[in-house]
This record gives sequence, structure tokens and C-alpha cells, in this order.
Amino acid sequence: MKENISGCSVEEAMRLIGGRWRMLLVSFLLEGPRRFNQLRRDVPNISQRMLTLELRALEEAGLVLRTVYPEVPVRVEYSLTPDGRRLEKIVEVLKEFGLWLKARPAA
Amino acid sequence: MKENISGCSVEEAMRLIGGRWRMLLVSFLLEGPRRFNQLRRDVPNISQRMLTLELRALEEAGLVLRTVYPEVPVRVEYSLTPDGRRLEKIVEVLKEFGLWLKARPAA
Repeated sequence: MKENISGCSVEEAMRLIGGRWRMLLVSFLLEGPRRFNQLRRDVPNISQRMLTLELRALEEAGLVLRTVYPEVPVRVEYSLTPDGRRLEKIVEVLKEFGLWLKARPAA
Repeated sequence: MKENISGCSVEEAMRLIGGRWRMLLVSFLLEGPRRFNQLRRDVPNISQRMLTLELRALEEAGLVLRTVYPEVPVRVEYSLTPDGRRLEKIVEVLKEFGLWLKARPAA
């Protein structure tokens, strides 16, 4: 990598949260903890396997917490960690940009 | 898509600017117009083909302008359009998050 600090950090961030789904999942988790199947309904065009992988990546990065409640049937909930909440500002500006994108006349 | 407006817009935004390279390229173009080979030096681990494709996608989305100066040899410059400058705030928060990511102890 070049020593351009700014570029480097953008790449570092995008390596973790780039990709089509992660910020979308984070945007739903910002509303509160969610079960796996709720997230599947929130994001109907994600496959079950992809959702599992994306949640696991966010979990391994310390941004999402997976909590297993020992009930019958077992309940598994996903929530944002305090570190994951750092993504709130990014979600906000993405939302703003996405709304503008959808509203502008086709390019 | 669900009618969840916020989620939808985040997906809309990420579909266009997600991926590892686009916001990185935008972060360099925010500093001023750049030639193709400058961008290759800025982002040494992108392939020539990928750089071409990424710039073309940004151009087709109306975020980047490609200007050909009829000199010998021909000079081609890439710059952000006014719409592309809307990404500045996103680059800023990504930078902030990336810096934090790099500074935190390994997860």
C-alpha cells in the first residue's frame, strides 16, 4: 500500500463494510436486535448462505454480537456491539446518497 | 424490495459505490483531476482492467467525467462531476472509520 493515509483508510473501511449487503444489514440492526429470519425478511433477495456468511464476517470483526438464548426452540439474536454502532454515521450518509440516487432522473 | 425506505436507499447506494475500489478512487479524485496512470500509482494493487471497469462504471453513473485532451500523446483525465462531489461526506466518514479500524487492537 502507498503511504497515502486517507486512501488507505478508505480501503481499509471498504474491505470490511463494502459489498452489497453488510451496510444494509447494519442499517436494520441499528433499529434493534434481530433474529436471523427477521433479517431474511428484511432483505428478501439475500440467500440464506450469504446472510450467514455476512453476519459471521461482521461478528468476527467485532461489529455484531450473536446471542443464543437457551430456549425451546433456541432463539438466536443479532445485535450491534458498541463498535458496530460506530457505523451509524456511515449508514446515515449512505441513506442520504441513496435517496438522492433514487430521486434523480435516470443518468 | 421491501418498502423499508431506509434499507432500500442504503442498498441503492452500496450497489453503486460498494465494492473495494470505487470509494478509494473517489477519495483520490476528490484531491483533483487525475490521469489513468496516476490512479494506477495511487492504487497499486488494482489491475489495469479493473481500474478501467471501475472508472467506466463511475462515469456511466454520472459521478466521474472522462476528458480527452487532443494532444500528442493524447491525455485523458478523470475528474468528479458535481454529482460525484456528493460522495465527499461518505469518504470522510469512511476515512474516520478506517482510521479507527487500523488503530484498534486486533479483534
